[in-house]
Amino acid sequence: MMRWPLPDPMRRALTLAREAAEAGEVPIGAVVVKDGTIVGEARNAPRATHDPTAHAEIAAIRAAAATLGNERLSGCELYVTLEPCAMCAGAIVHARIGRLVYAAPDPKGGAVTHGARVFDHPQCLHRPEVVSGIGEGESADLLREFFRARR
Amino acid sequence: MMRWPLPDPMRRALTLAREAAEAGEVPIGAVVVKDGTIVGEARNAPRATHDPTAHAEIAAIRAAAATLGNERLSGCELYVTLEPCAMCAGAIVHARIGRLVYAAPDPKGGAVTHGARVFDHPQCLHRPEVVSGIGEGESADLLREFFRARR
Repeated sequence: MMRWPLPDPMRRALTLAREAAEAGEVPIGAVVVKDGTIVGEARNAPRATHDPTAHAEIAAIRAAAATLGNERLSGCELYVTLEPCAMCAGAIVHARIGRLVYAAPDPKGGAVTHGARVFDHPQCLHRPEVVSGIGEGESADLLREFFRARR
Repeated sequence: MMRWPLPDPMRRALTLAREAAEAGEVPIGAVVVKDGTIVGEARNAPRATHDPTAHAEIAAIRAAAATLGNERLSGCELYVTLEPCAMCAGAIVHARIGRLVYAAPDPKGGAVTHGARVFDHPQCLHRPEVVSGIGEGESADLLREFFRARR
């Protein structure tokens, strides 16, 4: 099936996800973009770092905030290969990410359109624009392959 | 009013919260305990560190995981002075914290008994035992004083 060309930041996030898989981590990658430039990026790394918070999104947000010297990432976009969990969705709120673009939905662990639906509560201080499905097939293939190989 | 003596880890978390206030950060402190010993502790520090994820709970969990060399903190207790937000509740799930003890409820930003109620969804992989109200008066006083001084 022909697929539309992916935006560069999502292609980069998928490359990072592939690197995670090669390192034995669940293949998820994330990229923070400001004015068309990548200001932070990371892949999933909780096992190697012994850090349960070392999800791709958290690490990419921390990297971007360090790059910009600001805990607020207003006007930034976050590209990630899988629907963020509650922890990462919460971090997106705190960082004031302007737009979240995620590839594959995660009915088990996702907390954007599943489970805790972090952005959908009246208490939520900041709701990013949310785009999903861009790169979904590629991301789902990576995850499927990773878990199949480990079964 | 006479109050019951606080458990040592909550007293320590309140001291860390006071240190946060002195540093100009929202006064929240957190302590991770394993078999009666503190294995990680932290105070809120997002402003000084330019890190939107630098909540007391996240930093305490990261410190404990580094101390124990394990991303899973099974059998550990987390003491924190305020009801965790969605990000921190998600991190508690990922870390498999066995018991969460928090002091004051947070109707605005909390995500345990308010808002996203992160532990209450069928998808939630791990639900810690939750105890609240221990040190509530002391924690609420610290927060009230901090925000009053800044108005």
